[in-house]
Order: sequence, then structure tokens, then C-alpha cells
Amino acid sequence: MNSLRFTAESSSDGILERDFTVGDVPGILWSPAAATGPAPLVLMGHGGGAAKRHRAMAGRARLLVTGCGFHAAVLDAPGHGDRPRSARDAEDVAALRRAQAAGAPEAPVVVPYNVRLAEQAVPEYRAALDALQELPEIGTGGPVGYVGIGLGMAIGMPLVAAEPRITAAVFGMTWPDALFEAAKRITVPVEFVMHWDSGRIPREASLALFDTFGSAEKSLHANAGEHVAWHPVEADSATRFFARHLAPARP
Amino acid sequence: MNSLRFTAESSSDGILERDFTVGDVPGILWSPAAATGPAPLVLMGHGGGAAKRHRAMAGRARLLVTGCGFHAAVLDAPGHGDRPRSARDAEDVAALRRAQAAGAPEAPVVVPYNVRLAEQAVPEYRAALDALQELPEIGTGGPVGYVGIGLGMAIGMPLVAAEPRITAAVFGMTWPDALFEAAKRITVPVEFVMHWDSGRIPREASLALFDTFGSAEKSLHANAGEHVAWHPVEADSATRFFARHLAPARP
Repeated sequence: MNSLRFTAESSSDGILERDFTVGDVPGILWSPAAATGPAPLVLMGHGGGAAKRHRAMAGRARLLVTGCGFHAAVLDAPGHGDRPRSARDAEDVAALRRAQAAGAPEAPVVVPYNVRLAEQAVPEYRAALDALQELPEIGTGGPVGYVGIGLGMAIGMPLVAAEPRITAAVFGMTWPDALFEAAKRITVPVEFVMHWDSGRIPREASLALFDTFGSAEKSLHANAGEHVAWHPVEADSATRFFARHLAPARP
Repeated sequence: MNSLRFTAESSSDGILERDFTVGDVPGILWSPAAATGPAPLVLMGHGGGAAKRHRAMAGRARLLVTGCGFHAAVLDAPGHGDRPRSARDAEDVAALRRAQAAGAPEAPVVVPYNVRLAEQAVPEYRAALDALQELPEIGTGGPVGYVGIGLGMAIGMPLVAAEPRITAAVFGMTWPDALFEAAKRITVPVEFVMHWDSGRIPREASLALFDTFGSAEKSLHANAGEHVAWHPVEADSATRFFARHLAPARP
């Protein structure tokens, strides 16, 4: 089993931020600076082309740490951030850029690329969860959530389908094509975010994926527009979702 | 112009509750007990078969008053609450009960019934808004919202389409059949709530109605299940929606 090694640490505004590695996978753990006992953990997945140090990750972590007293952790996806990029990664990214520049459909490139990254990332996230739960301020047996959009959803759905320790998840905004089997197997509460007018991801496909989740408790949030980014209110909504599902005894 | 007459008043937990009439239409106004200057107002519409004193109205008002410092007001719909029920009201309600008891479709009865009530209620709400804005603690020119589900949506959509003073609205959970024309004319921010698995209101019809709203800013919240009631988190979400749209300068 790979153990967790902290490589850097800083603290501000009541948030302790620690860089870590599990094996050769780097990540960041954000925690309440004044943490005393075990507290829930939310695993996060960054979007394609981004990385663990993207400001959206720090922003989401801040809401979870200061709003809920939770821990939040993110890993660099394979070929992203501080991780080496293979020749195949470079080819896939180049193919994606070509498709985008040509105005051609992205899905034929993105979907298999994301599937390949997810196959590698799912065991990495499970190993990181093993290692993070060894920390006394997280602990084994506590509630664990997952939030990821874009690539973070493509990794997160097979992860949540496979990992019984994750009991609530927020997903959104990637092509659903390869994710229907995972959706069937996911039964934990889900909040699913989509852009109603996305010119990239077909509306009907996103609605069909939402319909496929096996979860008795699931909510679809569809926002008008075709923004690439998350609608700002959804980060707040996701925080409240985790507050409800990971710490139901809280007021 | 009908003026507002207060008929009863009580206060608890920082909330001033006043019964009023505008003409022969009774309503309730909830306000911050310590209100000093003009503050936003949210008009509310109750569901079919309910009335102004339904606990959902008081609950929503409490969130708006204590959470946002806003005023909230509801009217009894025609033939509901303390208002007289006409022979035609009694016939329509009896026809609805027969359809429900027989397991027959409700829409052929509910839709025209709601259209008739809305035709009467829309001018009543506009007159009440005139009168409420005469109060110094509300004032003219301030932000006004509307929230209504079920019958409250059937009344609220033509109201919001016709009333330029209403600048943000939350709707949900009635048959959309007669509401597409109003949806086209509504351009203010909208939050639209539906049950994903409603056995009564066809999913595709609700999605089509959401698509029809003319609003650049609109969000669909679809929750799994076929509950008749609002998902509890949606009352909180609606409160935050109004806090954002009626008092954007607030933190």
C-alpha cells in the first residue's frame, strides 16, 4: 500500500493546505487549521487541461473547509499538472485541439481519452483515499464525498460506482457517452449539473444520463446558457449538498 | 384603487404577521418586526386546495423575512381559504375529485380550472401589489419577486408575464399545457422546480415549458421522486435565489 507523504504545507484564513504524494501521484489536501477529531472528506476531480492547483479547486475546497469543517483533496489526473505527459497524452491533446480548431465534434476524441485517463485514475483515487483515511483528522469509516465536472466527472463516475466508501457525489458537464454503465451502478445521492444550452454536450444525452443514475435521491440542476464554467451558484449548492449528506446531524 | 386594510396583527420570533384585505381579497403580509426602510417584497401563491394560512406559506415567509430581511405576502386564491366558493368552483372541485378517484387524467379538469382562477387572480395580485407598495416599509420602485407552485404557478406565470414590477420568479409543479404563451413572455430570472418522476405531470411537458421561458437566466431543478410536496431543499434554494436577484448588493 502506498503511504501518504506531505511535501509542502501552508496555512491561511483558518485553512491548512498540504501538498502530498501517494506513490507518484501528487495531490493537495485542504483541512480546517483547527481540526481536532475525524471529519468528512470530499475528494475532488479537476477538469480536463486543468490541474490540482486550479483556482476552482482551491475555491471549492475553501467552501467545504470553512463552510462545513470538512477536508477536501484533489489529485493531478494522469498527464495533468505536475505529472509526466506521455506521447499518447500529447497525441490525444493535439487531436482534441485539432478538432476544436476545425469546429469538428469533440466527443470522438474526448470520450475515449477520458476513458483512458479514468482507467488509470480510479485506482489512484482509491489508493489516495486509503492513505488519507490513515490520517487521524480524517479517519476510517467517516463520510466521503466526490465532486468533479468535465474530466473530473469522467473519472468520478466509475470511481463512485466502484468505491463503496463514497456516499454522495456531485457531477456535471462532460459527454455522457461512456458513462451509462457507471450511472446504473451509482446509488448514492447525486447532484448533477448541466448547461441547458450547451453547444458541445447534447442536452438529450445529459438528461438521459441523469435518468440512468440508480440513486433514489438525485437532483438535476440545468442552467441556461452554454458557459464552459460552472454556474457560480452551483459551487454553493454543492457545498450545501455535502453538508446535508456527509454530516446530516449538523444544523 | 383598492386600499389595503389590516385586520389582525401578531408578532413572534422577529416576524410581524398581518392579515389584510385589498378590496374583498384577504391576504397575509409577513415582515421583519424591526423593519426600518423600504425592503424587497416577495409575492407568494398557494397551491390548489390550500390557502394563505397553509404552513408552507408561513414557512417560506419565515425564510424570506429572517433570512433576507424581505417582506412576503400571499393572497387567498379565488374560491380558496376565507373566500366564498361559487357553484362553479364546487363543480370544478367535484369533477377533479371524481377524476382522481377514478384514476383518470387530472389535466383536463385542472388546466381549465386553473386558467379560470388565474384570470381572476392576476388583477387581484396586481391590485394587492399596488396597495402593498403604498406601505413605507415596502415602497414603490423596490424589487419584487414571485414564488408559487401548483396553482400558485398557474396564477404566477401570467402574473409575471404581465407585471413588469416583478423581476425574479420561482415556479414549479403544475401542468404546463396552458402556460407556454406566458413562458415566452417571461424574461426575468426564473428558477423552475419539477419532479423527475412525476406520475401526474409529464416530464417532457415540464422540460418543454422550461425551454420556452424567454429568460436569459433560468435554472431547472429536477428532483427524483414523485412527491406532491416541494423537495425540502428547494425552499432554501428559492430563498437564496431571491436574495441574489432582489438584493444583489447583499453579501
